[in-house]
Parts: sequence; C-alpha cells; structure tokens
Amino acid sequence: MPSSAFASDNAAPAHPNVLDAITAANTGAAPSYGADPITQRAVAALRTAFDSPDAEVLFALTGTGANVIALAASVRPWQSILCSDIAHSLVDEAGGPVRLSGAQLTVLPSDDGLIDAAVLDDAVVRRGDVHASQPAVVTITQSTENGRVWTPQTIKDFIDHAHDLGLLVHVDGARVANAVAALDVAPREAVGDADIVTVGGTKNGLLMGDALLVRRPELFEGIHFAQKQIGHLSSKQRFIAAQFEAMLRDDLWLRNAAHANAMAARLSSGMTERGLTLASPTDANEVFVNLPAATFAAVSERYAVHRLDPRHPAVRFVCSWATTDQEVDDVLALLGQL
Amino acid sequence: MPSSAFASDNAAPAHPNVLDAITAANTGAAPSYGADPITQRAVAALRTAFDSPDAEVLFALTGTGANVIALAASVRPWQSILCSDIAHSLVDEAGGPVRLSGAQLTVLPSDDGLIDAAVLDDAVVRRGDVHASQPAVVTITQSTENGRVWTPQTIKDFIDHAHDLGLLVHVDGARVANAVAALDVAPREAVGDADIVTVGGTKNGLLMGDALLVRRPELFEGIHFAQKQIGHLSSKQRFIAAQFEAMLRDDLWLRNAAHANAMAARLSSGMTERGLTLASPTDANEVFVNLPAATFAAVSERYAVHRLDPRHPAVRFVCSWATTDQEVDDVLALLGQL
Amino acid sequence: MPSSAFASDNAAPAHPNVLDAITAANTGAAPSYGADPITQRAVAALRTAFDSPDAEVLFALTGTGANVIALAASVRPWQSILCSDIAHSLVDEAGGPVRLSGAQLTVLPSDDGLIDAAVLDDAVVRRGDVHASQPAVVTITQSTENGRVWTPQTIKDFIDHAHDLGLLVHVDGARVANAVAALDVAPREAVGDADIVTVGGTKNGLLMGDALLVRRPELFEGIHFAQKQIGHLSSKQRFIAAQFEAMLRDDLWLRNAAHANAMAARLSSGMTERGLTLASPTDANEVFVNLPAATFAAVSERYAVHRLDPRHPAVRFVCSWATTDQEVDDVLALLGQL
Amino acid sequence: MPSSAFASDNAAPAHPNVLDAITAANTGAAPSYGADPITQRAVAALRTAFDSPDAEVLFALTGTGANVIALAASVRPWQSILCSDIAHSLVDEAGGPVRLSGAQLTVLPSDDGLIDAAVLDDAVVRRGDVHASQPAVVTITQSTENGRVWTPQTIKDFIDHAHDLGLLVHVDGARVANAVAALDVAPREAVGDADIVTVGGTKNGLLMGDALLVRRPELFEGIHFAQKQIGHLSSKQRFIAAQFEAMLRDDLWLRNAAHANAMAARLSSGMTERGLTLASPTDANEVFVNLPAATFAAVSERYAVHRLDPRHPAVRFVCSWATTDQEVDDVLALLGQL
Repeated sequence: MPSSAFASDNAAPAHPNVLDAITAANTGAAPSYGADPITQRAVAALRTAFDSPDAEVLFALTGTGANVIALAASVRPWQSILCSDIAHSLVDEAGGPVRLSGAQLTVLPSDDGLIDAAVLDDAVVRRGDVHASQPAVVTITQSTENGRVWTPQTIKDFIDHAHDLGLLVHVDGARVANAVAALDVAPREAVGDADIVTVGGTKNGLLMGDALLVRRPELFEGIHFAQKQIGHLSSKQRFIAAQFEAMLRDDLWLRNAAHANAMAARLSSGMTERGLTLASPTDANEVFVNLPAATFAAVSERYAVHRLDPRHPAVRFVCSWATTDQEVDDVLALLGQL
Repeated sequence: MPSSAFASDNAAPAHPNVLDAITAANTGAAPSYGADPITQRAVAALRTAFDSPDAEVLFALTGTGANVIALAASVRPWQSILCSDIAHSLVDEAGGPVRLSGAQLTVLPSDDGLIDAAVLDDAVVRRGDVHASQPAVVTITQSTENGRVWTPQTIKDFIDHAHDLGLLVHVDGARVANAVAALDVAPREAVGDADIVTVGGTKNGLLMGDALLVRRPELFEGIHFAQKQIGHLSSKQRFIAAQFEAMLRDDLWLRNAAHANAMAARLSSGMTERGLTLASPTDANEVFVNLPAATFAAVSERYAVHRLDPRHPAVRFVCSWATTDQEVDDVLALLGQL
Repeated sequence: MPSSAFASDNAAPAHPNVLDAITAANTGAAPSYGADPITQRAVAALRTAFDSPDAEVLFALTGTGANVIALAASVRPWQSILCSDIAHSLVDEAGGPVRLSGAQLTVLPSDDGLIDAAVLDDAVVRRGDVHASQPAVVTITQSTENGRVWTPQTIKDFIDHAHDLGLLVHVDGARVANAVAALDVAPREAVGDADIVTVGGTKNGLLMGDALLVRRPELFEGIHFAQKQIGHLSSKQRFIAAQFEAMLRDDLWLRNAAHANAMAARLSSGMTERGLTLASPTDANEVFVNLPAATFAAVSERYAVHRLDPRHPAVRFVCSWATTDQEVDDVLALLGQL
Repeated sequence: MPSSAFASDNAAPAHPNVLDAITAANTGAAPSYGADPITQRAVAALRTAFDSPDAEVLFALTGTGANVIALAASVRPWQSILCSDIAHSLVDEAGGPVRLSGAQLTVLPSDDGLIDAAVLDDAVVRRGDVHASQPAVVTITQSTENGRVWTPQTIKDFIDHAHDLGLLVHVDGARVANAVAALDVAPREAVGDADIVTVGGTKNGLLMGDALLVRRPELFEGIHFAQKQIGHLSSKQRFIAAQFEAMLRDDLWLRNAAHANAMAARLSSGMTERGLTLASPTDANEVFVNLPAATFAAVSERYAVHRLDPRHPAVRFVCSWATTDQEVDDVLALLGQL
C-alpha cells in the first residue's frame, strides 16, 4: 500500500503531548458538556493565544463540523454565503453548509483562494432586492486550500472592506497555525478582525478536535444550539479541551506548524531544483507541483498523493508536524529518478 | 462543587483499555476518512458482535450525531419520524433531527419509553393523503431514557409490526450495552430486526465515539453524505475505531455495562430499603427515585443529579462502568441520614 | 358524483363581486409584484378592517402558503412552534411549516382547538437549555378546525399570557370572518393582540387568495423573502388585491361569513332535532355530527362529506357564503329518512 | 408614473378569454384540490399540447413556485443543481430552490443562458466522492432570461448529454410559448426530452398560474407533497385549470406568444435602425439594448424598464400578448429623439 506520509496533514498521528494530556484528564467523573475545569482552561488559553478576551469558544470534533456550525450561525435562509472558488466549504464539505443553513453559496473569483477585496462590491449590488438572496457572510481560508497565506495587511484590508459592506467574516483556519508560523506574527494578525474563526487542531497534531473562536458572539445567535443539533457538543468535552490545552502550552501548535512549513519548503525547493514547476507558491505546509502523467503514476505507487482536479497536472504533497527530513529526501530521490 | 459521579454515564472517564488502544494506534501516518486497517477491524468486530455480516458501519463522534444522521437518512422532508414522548431525539437533541431532515416528529404515548405496537396503527391512518406528513420511520430507545429495557419478545413484536406497516425502525442504542447485559442475550436479540442501530460507546467507557450499524444500507441512501455534511466523518478515524475495537474485544463493552447495571441495582434496592419509592423500575443502569424537595436539595449539595422534569419528584442517578460499591454506599448513607 | 355542497367552504364558487373586481382590474399594464395602486388600496382596507394602521400586509395564494410563510418567519431552526393537537399546520399542511422552518412542532392539548393558557407554562420550562428546542411562537386558529370560536376574552387572555412568556402569537384565520361574524365584534377583538394573522379569503368567497396581517413587522425579519422564495409573491398581485378590496367593501366578507354561520346553525339545529348528537358545538360555519356507519355510508352517496378521523363517528358538514336554505333542508330531509 | 408597458410580460393584463373561462367555471360547488372536471380537461390539454400522454400535471400559482417545486423534487440535500449563470432559479428566486431543497447550486458558464453541453462533463468529475455535493439535475431556461432560444437540435443534444451523464433535466419554461412560437415547431421539439417542464402561464396572458409537466413522474417522488407543503395545491384549482384550458384552446397560447415575439422584433429592428446596439440577439419577446446613461435616464422617465446589472449598459424591454404596434412605435419615436 502506498505511504500516506504526504497524503494530508490529517493522515499524521497525534502529538505525544496530546495523548499525555488526555491520559492526565482521565481521572474520575467530571461535569459533562463543557462544565469541567479543563474546558475552562482551554477556553482561556485560546482567548489568550488570539488576544480575544471576549470571545466565546466552542469545540467541534472536525473542521467540517466547525465550519458548518459557523456558517449556519452566520446566515438566515434567504441570505447567501460568499466564498472563493476553491473554498473547502464549497468543494469539500459535501454541501453541508448549504444543507444546514438553507443559504445559497456565491462563488467569488480568487488567486489560489486569495480574494481581491474589490470583488465583494460586485456581490452586494442587489442588497434589499426581495428577488435576490442577500449576502451576509464571506468565508476565507488562512492558509488557503492551495497553501497560500494572506498577509496581515491583505487580510486586514479584505476584512475591513467586508465589514464596510455589512458582511460578517469567517476565517476557516483549519491550517491557521501554519499561516501564523509562516508569517511569524501574533495569531491575531493572521486572522485580522474576523468575526469568527475555525481554529484547526486535527491537522496540527490533535487526535481530533477543532475550535470556534466567536469574537462577536452577539452576531451568532443560536450557535450553541447548532453545535448541539449536529452532535458536536461533546459530553466528555474535557478530552477535547485537554488536547487544545496541551497544544497551546509553550506554543507547541506554532512549533508543530513551523516544522510542517519547513518540511514543505525543503520539499518545494528540492522539486524546483530537480526541474519541476510548482502549480502554486509554497507559502505554508502544502506543495502543489505539476507532474507529468507518467511521473504521477510512478509516484502514486509509492505515495498516496492527490490530483485535486483530474484534468490538471497539479499534485498535492502535504507536510505535517510529524514529517521528517528523511521522508522529504526520499520523495525527492524518487522524483530525481523519474 | 458537587460530585458528578451519578450525574450521567457520560461524566465517567474512559476505560484504560481505550486509552491503550489509542496509544497503540498512534504510529505514523495512516489513510484518513476510514481507509485505514483499524477501521476495517472495528467494522468487522461490530458486525460480528451484532451478527450482522452485511451491515455497513459508520462512526460518529457523539450519540446525538449518530441519531441525527440515522434519522435524516431515514426520511424525506414530507415524511415524519415517530418517537416516544421521552425520546432523546425529541427532547434532548435541540431539534437536530428535525432541522437536518425537515421532517415532522410525531409523538407516540409510551410507558417510560416502551411503546405498545398497537399505537403504530393510529399513526399511519392517513397514508397517501397529500395533506398529511407521511410516517416513514419509528425510533425507539434500548435501554430507554427512563432506564427500561425492551425484552427480546416485545422489541421483536414491535419491530415486526412496524415493518408490516411499512415503517423503518431505528434503535437509539446509546445504552444498548446496558440492555444486552441486563437481558443476558445475544446483542441481536436486544435490537430485534431494527434497520439501523445507534451503538453507544461514549456512555460505556469510550473517550468519545458512537457507531451506526446500518443493517439495510440500501434503505438509507445518502447516509455517508449526511455523516460527512455535519462533520462526523473523522479524518483520523482510526482513533475512533481503535476505541471500539478495544471495547468489543473479549466483550469488555458488556462487562462494563453489566457492572454499571449491578451498581444501579445496588443503589435502587438500597433506596427502596430506605423507604424511598422508585419513579420507574430499574432495568439497567439508571435509577429514578422520587425525592421530596428538601431531600433533593440536600442531596444536590453533594451530588450533581437531575430532576428531568422540575414539576415532578423523580431524580435520576446514573451508574457507569466506573461506579464503585463505595460510591453507591456513600449515596445510600447520605439518603439514610436525610 | 356526490355533491360538494357541504364538503368544504373551499368547494364553493367565487362571489360575483370578486369576479367583477378582477374584470375591473384587468386594464392595461400595471407594475408587478405589488407596486400597483390596487394593492395599495387593499392593504389600506385590511389595515382599517383590523384597526391595525402599522401592520404590513402580504398576500399569499392559499391559506397553507400564508401559514407556512408566517410560521417560517416566526422561528429559527433551533426553536419550536407550539400548536393545538388539531391545528391545520400540524395535521393538514403535509409538514410544510416544519420543512420550511426546520423547527420542531410541539403539540398542546386542546378542547376542539381551544387551548387553555395554562398549558403554555409547561411548554417553556426548559428555556435556555441548549439540549432542548426553544419555544418561540404559538399558533392558534380562529375559528378552530372543529368550528369553535375563541371569545374576545379567552383569546385576549391566551395571547397576553403567551406574550408574558415571550412567545409570538400567530392566528390562523382561514375562517376568521366566521369568527368575527359569530362574535359580532370588531375584527380586532376576534384576534386579540396577535402578532401576525392569516386572514382567509379563499374560504369566504375569493377565487383564491389569503392575506397576512403582520402587526409587528420588526419581529418577522425576512418574511418578504420567505413569501418570494416559495412563490407567493405574485407578479400580477393586483388580481389578488382586487379580490380583497371587493370583499372588504361594505363588509361583504362579514356578510358572507354571517350567512355561512346561519346556514350552519340551521343545519346543526335541524340535526339535533332529528335526534343526532353533535361531536362539537356549532359556533361558526362547520357542523360536526356523529353519524352511525350506515347513515354515513348512505349520506356519502349524495354528499361528499368527511370523517376526519376514520375511527370516530364525527362527520363534518361545512357551510359557505353560497349555501342555500334549500341545500340545508335537503340534507336534513335525507337525514330524516335515514 | 412611468408606463409599465415594457417592464415585463408579467405587467400585462389577462387575456379576455381567460376571464371568460373563469366566469364560466364559477358555477356552484366543485370538488377541491384538483378533483374537479375542469382540472381533468386542462391536464389532458397540456399532455396533448406537449405530446406527453404519460405526464403528470401539477399547477402552481407562480413561476417561482413551479420552479422551486420542480427542483426540490429533483434532488436530495447532498446533491446539487446545475444552472446557468443567469438562471432565474439562481438570481431571481431569492434562494428559494436552495432553501427548500437544501441542495447546492453549481453555476455553469453560458452564452446568454445557452449552455454548451460539454461543460456538463466538468461538473460531474467527482461523482461518488463523499466530500463533494453530487450533481443530480440541470435546469435550463427556454426561452432564456436574456431572450435567447435553444434550437430543437441544441436542446436535444444538451438533454441527451445530460441524460448520458445521469442528470435529470428541468426546463424553466416561464416563456416556453415564446420559444415554441419563435421556432415554429411542435412544443415537444422546443423542450426536447426534458424530464420536467415549467410551463409558463402568467407571462403569456393568464391572471396567474403556471404548470408543471412531469414527464417521468417516477423520478420525482414527493413532488405532490412539495406542492402542498408550500401552498401551491390550490383548493379551488378549477380556476387555475380553466385558465390553462382557455389558453390551450385553438393554440391561443402560441398566438399570444407569436404576437409578443413580433412586437419584440419590431422594437429590436427599430432600435438597430436608430443606431443602437443590442446586448443580446432578439430571439423571442425580450429586447436587450445598450443605452448610454443619459438615454436610459430619459427613457426611465417614461417607461419602467430595467438595467439587470447596474454596471452594464444593457436595458431590457419585454413585449407581451397585449403590446401594440403603437406602443412600440412610441418607444422608438422617443429613442429617435434622444
């Protein structure tokens, strides 16, 4: 069977500290549904990490869960959700955000998921027209599905413009740690003034678990009900919270992400040195390289890697906290032979 | 803070074997979304346990998640879901099954969640009438929310009658292990010929995780999409599967349940010996006892236990795999003093 | 084929004044979607009739359409709609309110659709509990589906109590004219301080058309979108509005209703004189009489009348604006023979 | 107030034959919900007109209503609806199809609403992938929202290709009569082998009413419930059916449409003779002409006509069955002066 080493960062194992934290949390009975002290500490740690003392924090068990809850709480069923043409919420959540919200998705053109703020103007021209679904929220991804990173300035400008237009902003941060590490800024710089942020955990070393940082809770009425209704209010929430607490301690989440980014940079530069061309710049922990069909076929015998679009030569390699120099060099050696 | 020892079986910790299994599974990269070998083994173990070789198995991260997926896959939005007046899906899932399915819930009278098969006849009198929502599925709970157990004969008769009427049957088995252990029969006897079963894990010693046993997959079109859409298709599913594998090995799930039942029996008989009256018979691991207001107040200072209906004297005590004789005796001693 | 004369008031023809008004409206091009002057006049007439100068008025093409729009605009999908056990929205709209809103219906016990205000207290005991669907609106019917009329005092007390509990109140007034006529009060007395009212037209002499009187428009955000989304924003709305204008002129709607009520009273008293028993008192234009199976069978050969519940002897006869003394006497004569 | 003469074909009055038919239908009581003889005759007439003897026919009260019912019955909530970038269902139904179905809309590029069959191939590349919403139906419009007409060959090829890909096909025929008249073919040639067709009435001379021709009823389970749930099952359906019967008699619908098309052709050629350029070719009854801002402003004082996109100079003029030569010439005279 081909190796899953570069298939996705969600193929990686959990970080040992995460397992240790779960074991430490596994002592006796504890209040369920988040009324336990570990949840309180993890919530505080997330608020601190993002310098958002007034945020509410909810946990979800997957990134799709977190995104669906966030978007369903952002719109009414006559409104629409704006997103990029490669947004996870558009192409990889099986229509979940639409099913739960009843709201239409409107696709904005993008450069690898990075959206020009000016395109928002076009999206809101029919405000108040009863015949038209009304834009209410825009979701962007940091780092994007194609491995790109919004700079602090571009994300600030984008979000400010969205707010000027009366739109809420959701940041899908399934890989926000990789963006923060790549930018080497305070986390809040990486997500700007977003109203709600999915803070990824699963792809950065958790067993499972993502969080929602709800910075303007008054704008997301019913979000706790949405979390409960689709089964993401965990009765034994201490075991999710403990993972986040371990990950946020001493910036382990950022060290994990920085390592993944470094591995991707090593892989990316090794590929270009071997004459391959990248399909997208490598800003974070994902490498998109154009491979001829024969090369892709040969690589696929050894590695489970994906062509996101079967009609395009771009192949994705994802590095994680657990990727090693040796694993990267093995791939490069194989590519050198082909 | 009052003890959570009897608040719910979901307040209990995870069984040590479960943590060991997770640690053992945490080695290197593995295919995501259930394409890993541990998932295959856990699926096989669940099929074997329920003697259902053709069943599909899906994992969910909570019992509510599993129930919502099962019910949403059972109905179209002009159909209705029949349930008892105390069904978890009716009263404790915040309307999730209705929100996701768009289907109406129709309440059937019950005796502590045990429903007389004859009441189904009343529910289907308007079949084919375009003005009436059309019953498509009935959900029952084994053991019930009030701690009662359907006997193999009563559940068989009920399900056979539902099938005769053209209804699908879902069994919410968040505590199915307690029913199996109480009945001391093969698991399949405890769920009869149900079409789909929520097999609880969280309340019986898992960190988190419940499963769906889909015994007639051809009748639940789109169930895999529903699982994905609301975020219960775990990327690192091996860590859910490993827990189930550990729990099913050597019938640990049934031993855990039998222990919880035994603790409840000890508690229940101790209460009646002290002159208290039960609100419901104690068939499994939940004890419902009528407590005067003053007693309830005094108990509440030491134990977080619930009055499910604030207008009724019944107070619920739940025992788990982790409940000890000493904990039971402490409660009884306290009640003796009061 | 059996006569439809007593099958329902929606089997009756349109009143001649209604057709005349449509013909008069059919001159040249007019602004669509309600921007025409006839719509303005009809809206004003409805506001005047109900002494509700600040109400918004929307038109729908059927009573189900109006109810579904009203209820969908009353709730969020984690909330619930309270209704009586015989509510049209519960039993005769095929689950439409649930499908469009995603909200759960909670059934309240009633006496022929008349609900004791005290039962509302039971419905709201779990306010704020994230595990429970949250009651947001109660819908009542005036006159009820079983032909009963709320008195001004009982409807006032009920609505005041609902408001005290933080609930919105919808009145399904598919037959509100019959209630107003029966009570012989100002229309606003018949609907109390309801927040939104379905004002029936179809059953009282229109070709087709019902209206929504939205007395607290600020509480029904998105209601215009809901109307558009399900196709009840009529492009040629002038033709709906013209019918309402004709019907409200010189209280034709109340004269029509008073006639229907009088015919029902004649039928009802004739039946009791012939020794039959009523299943419900005849407060308005519907008569529910218990008929032995053989009698029902014989009557059914001549008249299309319905047993609402096939297990119960109650048979419904509905009178309309067009029912004649002769038609009533013919039925009574037939019953006398049987 | 500016004239609505060219604002839309839905601003036109009803044809006199339609009113006559309603008056003729207004005699005595009749079975409700479509069980009347006029409904039977109108259904037969629609089947005959489209040479579709096995089709089911449902009536709706508006075109949006018909489209929403058709699309909601075409998909499950993990599937998607393919449509053009200018589809009414995408841009002018306020998100109704998405709200009712829970399904995602996927936009296909088009030339004025005419879609190249080859683009369907791109839409189905992820069939069976549980992470992706699954395309189930494609909706096209005949004649299109920009006044273009699919030829019998292009619509046949498109639909055949869609069927080869396993997609259902809905034709939004709000203006199908204009297409049939423009092509001068049998109606069935104009809609190809579509599985379901919205047959417009409102825009072609009815008071109000559109129909659904369901040619493969077995593929649209629950469509009658959807019609009921959102309030388009009219109790007095005879009054909708009578309009269709009148319109289909002696091909009045096609004569009305041919007249509207001829008026549009007169207007369109008059505009180009005056040096204006068309934004889209005039295939049917809609004219899209580019007007400078000053001209548009001046025209708007006399005529309520629309810029569909405020950033584009295209202005829409719509002709109807009631448009006169004089009205066209008046517009042309005004444009000549400007």
